[in-house]
Amino acid sequence: MSKRLLFALTGIIAFSAASHAQVVASKDPDSLAIRKIFDEALLHGQSYDNLHYMCKKIGHRLSGSPQAAAAVEYTYQVMQQFCDTVYLQECMVPHWVRGTHDEGKITGSKSHGTVPVNLLALGGSIATPAGGVTAEVLEVHDFKELEKLGKKGVQGKIVFFNHPFDNAHVNTFHAYGECVEYRWAGPSVAAKYGAAATIVRSMTNGIDEFPHTGSMHYDTLQPKVPCAAICTRDAELLSKIIKNEGKASFYLNLDCQTLPDVKSYNVIGELRGSERPEEIIAVGGHLDSWDVGEGAHDDGAGVVQSMEVLRLFKATGVRPKHTLRAIMFMNEENGLRGGTKYAEVVALKKEKHIAALETDAGGFSPRGFGLGMTDAQQTKVRTWAPLLLPYGIHELKSGGGGADIGPLAKQGVPVIGLRPDSQRYFNYHHTPADVFEAVNKRELEMGGAAIAALLYLIDMYGL
Amino acid sequence: MSKRLLFALTGIIAFSAASHAQVVASKDPDSLAIRKIFDEALLHGQSYDNLHYMCKKIGHRLSGSPQAAAAVEYTYQVMQQFCDTVYLQECMVPHWVRGTHDEGKITGSKSHGTVPVNLLALGGSIATPAGGVTAEVLEVHDFKELEKLGKKGVQGKIVFFNHPFDNAHVNTFHAYGECVEYRWAGPSVAAKYGAAATIVRSMTNGIDEFPHTGSMHYDTLQPKVPCAAICTRDAELLSKIIKNEGKASFYLNLDCQTLPDVKSYNVIGELRGSERPEEIIAVGGHLDSWDVGEGAHDDGAGVVQSMEVLRLFKATGVRPKHTLRAIMFMNEENGLRGGTKYAEVVALKKEKHIAALETDAGGFSPRGFGLGMTDAQQTKVRTWAPLLLPYGIHELKSGGGGADIGPLAKQGVPVIGLRPDSQRYFNYHHTPADVFEAVNKRELEMGGAAIAALLYLIDMYGL
Repeated sequence: MSKRLLFALTGIIAFSAASHAQVVASKDPDSLAIRKIFDEALLHGQSYDNLHYMCKKIGHRLSGSPQAAAAVEYTYQVMQQFCDTVYLQECMVPHWVRGTHDEGKITGSKSHGTVPVNLLALGGSIATPAGGVTAEVLEVHDFKELEKLGKKGVQGKIVFFNHPFDNAHVNTFHAYGECVEYRWAGPSVAAKYGAAATIVRSMTNGIDEFPHTGSMHYDTLQPKVPCAAICTRDAELLSKIIKNEGKASFYLNLDCQTLPDVKSYNVIGELRGSERPEEIIAVGGHLDSWDVGEGAHDDGAGVVQSMEVLRLFKATGVRPKHTLRAIMFMNEENGLRGGTKYAEVVALKKEKHIAALETDAGGFSPRGFGLGMTDAQQTKVRTWAPLLLPYGIHELKSGGGGADIGPLAKQGVPVIGLRPDSQRYFNYHHTPADVFEAVNKRELEMGGAAIAALLYLIDMYGL
Repeated sequence: MSKRLLFALTGIIAFSAASHAQVVASKDPDSLAIRKIFDEALLHGQSYDNLHYMCKKIGHRLSGSPQAAAAVEYTYQVMQQFCDTVYLQECMVPHWVRGTHDEGKITGSKSHGTVPVNLLALGGSIATPAGGVTAEVLEVHDFKELEKLGKKGVQGKIVFFNHPFDNAHVNTFHAYGECVEYRWAGPSVAAKYGAAATIVRSMTNGIDEFPHTGSMHYDTLQPKVPCAAICTRDAELLSKIIKNEGKASFYLNLDCQTLPDVKSYNVIGELRGSERPEEIIAVGGHLDSWDVGEGAHDDGAGVVQSMEVLRLFKATGVRPKHTLRAIMFMNEENGLRGGTKYAEVVALKKEKHIAALETDAGGFSPRGFGLGMTDAQQTKVRTWAPLLLPYGIHELKSGGGGADIGPLAKQGVPVIGLRPDSQRYFNYHHTPADVFEAVNKRELEMGGAAIAALLYLIDMYGL
C-alpha cells in the first residue's frame, strides 16, 4: 500500500493535505514586504522574550511603583538596540497604593454564616475607617434603581452594583462597556444618596474566583466612600442570599491610600524617516499595569509589540519614509497622565502625526483594526485588505484607537486600535490571572507583525 | 465635569464607546435565526459543561479503553435529551495499550552524562526487548538523508527524526503536515535500513517539555521497530550533543502492546427532517483520544460541539427540513474504524448525504470552514459570507473536512471542516497538556454556534 494511500486512509494529515494553501507572497513588493515582516516575527520575534522579562523579572507595574520605574528602564534599554533615538518624556503620575489587606465578608447569613469574599479595592479608593465598615447590603442592578430608592433607601448601606456582562455580545468589550460605569462612577453616585461604601460585581464574562480591580473616579461634589470589586462567584452568592433571606450584611476593610504624585516617564523610540522625517507614524502601548498579576495582556503585550514593530522594520530592511515612533505610555490605568502629556508636547512642538496606533486589547490572535478616521481614510485602508487577509486580519471597521491616543484623536490625528480576538480577554483583565503563562507566543508575535504590516502600508501610501 | 467627559478623558471605555457596533440581526429571517443560534450558545450553551464531564469524569479515551466505553454511554445519554433518535453503530477497534513505563535516556554524553528524556511511545508501537535498547543515535532531518546513508550507515542504530515545524506558516496545520510523515512512516522507513528503533521530534511549534504521541504505521514488508516521540526541548539537546560531541547514545525502554480488537461504537443522534427526512446533513467529532491528558481539544471539543449543534436547532425552535445527524466517531486516532464503518453503512443503505461536517481542530475561536466540494458549491457557500462575518467567520476556502468523513468524501459527499484559530493547537495536541483547563468556554461555544449557523443555511438552501 502506498504511503499516499495510507495517509489518505488514516487521514492523519487530512487538514494539511486538503486544506487551503500556505500564505505565499506574490511578486507584488508590498505582499513580499509583509511576508518578510511575518516571517521575521514568527521565526525570530522578540516580543515573547521581552514580555517574559516584563512579567517575570519586573512584575506588575502600577504608576509610581518601583516596578513601573524598572519598566521605564528596561524598555529604554531594549529600544536602544534597534532605534535611532530613544528618550524619556517626563510626566507626574498618581501614586495610589493598596494596603496590607483587602478584606471582605458576607456576615450573619442564616444559611451561610460568615463568608469570606474575594475582593480587591478599586484603584483610587480611600481606605475604610480602621476596623472596617459593616453595614446592610443594598443590591442594585443599575443607577435608575438607586435613584428610585433615594437617600431613604440608601443611607448608611453598602451599595452592591450587580450588573452582569451580557454574554450575547460577540465582542466582549461591548459587554464591558455596558458595565464599567458601575465601577467607575458607582462610588460617587451611591455616595450622593448616603452610601457607606460600594462593592461592584467584577467585570468579566464568566463565574469565577478572581476579583477584577480597575479605576474609579470620585466626584468632587460628593463624599468619598471606599469601594471594591468582588469576584463574580461571590457576587452570585451574595445576590442569592439577599434573594433567599431578604437581606445581607457585609464587612469591608480596606487600607489603601493615595500618596503624593511621583515623577515618571513615557519612553519613546524612533526610526527616523528617510523622506519625511518631520511626519510621524506612532505606535504605542502602556507600561503601567494594575498592581496584581503581571500585567501580561494588559498591557505588557502592547508594550512589547510596539517595540517589536520598530525592530521588525529594522530587521527586514525597511527604512520608513516617515518617522516611525514607538511610545511606551505611562499611567493609562489610573490617570492617563502619559497620554495626556504626550499630546501636550505634540501640540506644543506642532509635530505632525500621520497616524497613531495603540495596542491595548491583549496579546491574542490579531483579527483586525478599529479605524478612528474619516470615511475616505477608512476606505483607503480597506483597499489594503487583500494584503492583510492572508494573515487572518479581516476586520477593518470604524472604531476607536485606545485611551492613550485619545488626546491625539482630539487634535484630529487619525487613530487606530489593534483588535485581537476578544473572547478570553476578560478572563485576565485587572486580575492576578493576567500573567505571562496566559499569553501564547505565536498569537503575541502575530499581533506585532499585523501592526507592522499596516504601518508599512500607511508609510508607503499615506492615509 | 460630566460623566461623559470623564469617560472620554480616562478612556477606560475607549474600546466599547468608539468601536464598531454590536452584532444586531437585521430583519432578514436568516440573520435573525443565526443571531438566535449564537444567543442560545453564548447564553445557555452546554458544550462547556459536557466537555467538563468528558474530561474530568471520564478522562482520556483511547479506543478499546474503559473510558472510551464510558464516552459512548455518556454521549448516548446526553443526546437522548434533545434528539428524536439516538443509536449505536457497532465497529471493531484496535486495542493498543501503553505499558507501565515509557523510558528514555541520552547516555554517555561527555558534557551531560546521562540525561532522562521526556518521551511517549507512539500509538501502535511494539515494545522494546525486556531491558530496553541502547544504541548509537543517528540524527536525520528527512527521508532523503536516511536513504543516502543506506544500510551501512543505519544498521543497528536508533534513528532520530529531527524535522522541526516551520513556524513561518500562519496556519500551524501546514507545519504539522510537513512533519507528520516522520512520525507516521518513519519507523518502517528506518527499519528498511536496519534501524534498531526510532525516536521522533514532537510535532509542535515551540520548545517545551511535552512529548506528543500519535499514530504510526508498520509497513508489512519491514521488520517492526519500537518508536517514540521525544519532547522538543530534549530533541534540541540531543541534536546539540551530537553536534558538539560527534555522537550520542540513547536508551529506549517501552513495554506497550497491541491486544485483540475490541467491540466499540459510533454514537449517532438525529433530528428528523420535516420535509426531506431521507436526506441527511451530518456533523461529527471523534469520541476517542490519545491516552494522555484528557483529549479536551482533540477531540472532546468536537464531540460536544457536534451534540450541541442539534441542541441549538431544538432550543431555537428550528425544525430542520433535512435530517440533521450528529455522529460521535470512534477510533479516529489509531485506525479510523468508526469513520470507515459509518461510510460503509451509508453506502449499504444508500443514505443520501447533502453534506458532512467534522470539527476536529480544537475548541478555539472559529474563523471559518474548509470546503471539500465542487467550485459551484463553494461559490454558493460564499454567498452566505455576510451572514457569518458578524460572528468572526471570515474564511470560506477550499479545503478538507476531517479524517472521519474522509471515507464519505470518497463517495462524493461534500465535506466541510470547522477552522478554528490554529495558533495554540499544537501546544496541546496528543500531550498530557490537552486538558479541560486549556479550553475557553466562549471560544468553544462560538464554534458550535458557527457550525449550527452554516448547517442551518445548508438546510435552508442546499448546496
